[in-house]
Amino acid sequence: MNQSSNVSSNERYQRGWAKLKEIDGEAGEKVIEALADIAPDFARYLIEFPFGDIYSRPQLDLKSREIAVVAALTALGNATPQLKVHLQAALNVGCTREEVTEVIMQMAVYAGFPAALNGLFAAKEVFAALDAQV
Amino acid sequence: MNQSSNVSSNERYQRGWAKLKEIDGEAGEKVIEALADIAPDFARYLIEFPFGDIYSRPQLDLKSREIAVVAALTALGNATPQLKVHLQAALNVGCTREEVTEVIMQMAVYAGFPAALNGLFAAKEVFAALDAQV
Amino acid sequence: MNQSSNVSSNERYQRGWAKLKEIDGEAGEKVIEALADIAPDFARYLIEFPFGDIYSRPQLDLKSREIAVVAALTALGNATPQLKVHLQAALNVGCTREEVTEVIMQMAVYAGFPAALNGLFAAKEVFAALDAQV
Amino acid sequence: MNQSSNVSSNERYQRGWAKLKEIDGEAGEKVIEALADIAPDFARYLIEFPFGDIYSRPQLDLKSREIAVVAALTALGNATPQLKVHLQAALNVGCTREEVTEVIMQMAVYAGFPAALNGLFAAKEVFAALDAQV
Amino acid sequence: MNQSSNVSSNERYQRGWAKLKEIDGEAGEKVIEALADIAPDFARYLIEFPFGDIYSRPQLDLKSREIAVVAALTALGNATPQLKVHLQAALNVGCTREEVTEVIMQMAVYAGFPAALNGLFAAKEVFAALDAQV
Amino acid sequence: MNQSSNVSSNERYQRGWAKLKEIDGEAGEKVIEALADIAPDFARYLIEFPFGDIYSRPQLDLKSREIAVVAALTALGNATPQLKVHLQAALNVGCTREEVTEVIMQMAVYAGFPAALNGLFAAKEVFAALDAQV
Repeated sequence: MNQSSNVSSNERYQRGWAKLKEIDGEAGEKVIEALADIAPDFARYLIEFPFGDIYSRPQLDLKSREIAVVAALTALGNATPQLKVHLQAALNVGCTREEVTEVIMQMAVYAGFPAALNGLFAAKEVFAALDAQV
Repeated sequence: MNQSSNVSSNERYQRGWAKLKEIDGEAGEKVIEALADIAPDFARYLIEFPFGDIYSRPQLDLKSREIAVVAALTALGNATPQLKVHLQAALNVGCTREEVTEVIMQMAVYAGFPAALNGLFAAKEVFAALDAQV
Repeated sequence: MNQSSNVSSNERYQRGWAKLKEIDGEAGEKVIEALADIAPDFARYLIEFPFGDIYSRPQLDLKSREIAVVAALTALGNATPQLKVHLQAALNVGCTREEVTEVIMQMAVYAGFPAALNGLFAAKEVFAALDAQV
Repeated sequence: MNQSSNVSSNERYQRGWAKLKEIDGEAGEKVIEALADIAPDFARYLIEFPFGDIYSRPQLDLKSREIAVVAALTALGNATPQLKVHLQAALNVGCTREEVTEVIMQMAVYAGFPAALNGLFAAKEVFAALDAQV
Repeated sequence: MNQSSNVSSNERYQRGWAKLKEIDGEAGEKVIEALADIAPDFARYLIEFPFGDIYSRPQLDLKSREIAVVAALTALGNATPQLKVHLQAALNVGCTREEVTEVIMQMAVYAGFPAALNGLFAAKEVFAALDAQV
Repeated sequence: MNQSSNVSSNERYQRGWAKLKEIDGEAGEKVIEALADIAPDFARYLIEFPFGDIYSRPQLDLKSREIAVVAALTALGNATPQLKVHLQAALNVGCTREEVTEVIMQMAVYAGFPAALNGLFAAKEVFAALDAQV
């Protein structure tokens, strides 16, 4: 059916793990570790499907993908830990702070001012943590 | 406080109206018309704030903005008419069909397969309507 | 524990049924009828808890209660049939068309412009149906 | 209309209170206590409708009911305290840790990976608290 | 990492396709067909991850899985087509009409009466279509 | 198009700032301050659109507006900080504690008991903070 239909699960896993580290960095690895004692299979699925399948597709650049995720998680408003991981991820793949801030602001139009405000305060925390590392 | 603090509402309205036509095209104008007899002031706010203020900001290109909207509306899953307007808008500002399809597919990871499926079927309708026009 | 703790379920049911007819009118009765062959017990709960218990409480006037419902259902954006019933109900208990329209517009701030737009178009249908009856 | 139409509210309250203790145990009683000074009537409604009416119905076993609640609260993603109460409740009525973990994992398909991840981390806390009690 | 780590994608696909047909039946096959011209890769992911991975796990019986899905989609309230597919699927794997109706009713407690009402009316349509087939 | 179409943005800003202080009081001013270093333009939009435009409209009294907001934010369930600001705001513009508590309780019908419970616990915190100030 397509290019990946003969790859082994092992190849998907390796490809996904490399992609997860490229995009989410250390924050992504910590999520995987945190799943080890409660749902290790779910950690594997998280590596294989979102990262091994979806993020590995060439049809959309990673910067556009992270803009999409930051927008969606800001709008949904019920997944702050994942929004923070992807604010960092957006910076990792080349978005500027100004760009991700702008995406969050735009969500006021589509999901309301509270969703945008909570997204901006999440970004403020992520940026402050980065500045503190320097 | 910033560059627009001295502009009149009239300038915001003109700028917003031009931006709405650039992005949403005819579909956007129809939304404004449909509001005329129920909430004309809301039509004005829709032109002024989202388009006159937000979309007129230079901090993010229109293609990235439409990727953000398509992602958010697919994930929220409760605003199909607006998703269709913005699928068309995304094409208007330079996204390819493949790119917006890819954004919708990616939302399976963040909002589940039903949200992505319903987004894909909305896209299918929008693309079919475009093909029928030719 | 309070004033209603000795009333029989039958009294709750009678009180709820009268309240449902006062607030929702014919549209409410149709919902109850539509449940008869799929979930008659649920029809009874709908009469007893929301109407026999909640709406029968004197702590808030019915007009304020309908403003609250119209706001919530507009913001949630996934219950259009119930929003329409309560737009009619709001008019039944003394809200003006202008007031309910205003509540819906205000939801743009808290749930985004698509939620408000879809609420306004629902109101437009409800108002048109009323005008067609005259 | 049905078997309960002649029961007094007092009977509903007693039946609900017994059911709440059976299902939610101490965590449920604490919720009721926490409502005492802000909304005592709401505590009564919570006992009477969900527990006295719904959970007392014989049409579905309690284990299936808790699977339904864990699924719904994981998917909604905005009611973590109640999800934790029902993760404990699911164990109380006979679900295994493996089963509730599996329900949460399955929600990745219907509500996205962030919802499932946050559900798994809530389960991890509940299970850790149980292990610390021993 | 686990039993499936060496299986080829082809095996996952075959397993998922068989599972999709077992659970969703004809309705599931139609969804796959409908994706063929807009997003064929997404059809493959839908077969592989939800059905080849999640539903193929032995940790939870299919009846419990469908109770979980019906609960979640009723509560989310924004995926009626998928709710209908899974109401049929629930019957396919052994739930009675009474049981799925009961799950939907219970959602009034966790997601409100409008969500439960819309779920019940979806069930009414599914049951009527089944009765019309006989 | 209407009365405000010739006002300058500066007038909207002044009108909005005065309205924000009237409604939200100190809590509102703190939100504006918190935005200063991350998104100062968004602080300006927040003053201009919700407060300078929407809340300044005479078509609905402020008490009804706050009932609408408390209802919506309780029902959405994903914006607790903003709900707390508006619980205080509701009291500022003339609602009683009993009235806002009643609005939150009513949301159990439209968004489920968990949403209402979390709203009530937010109100409990706001009321306790007020009592501690005296």
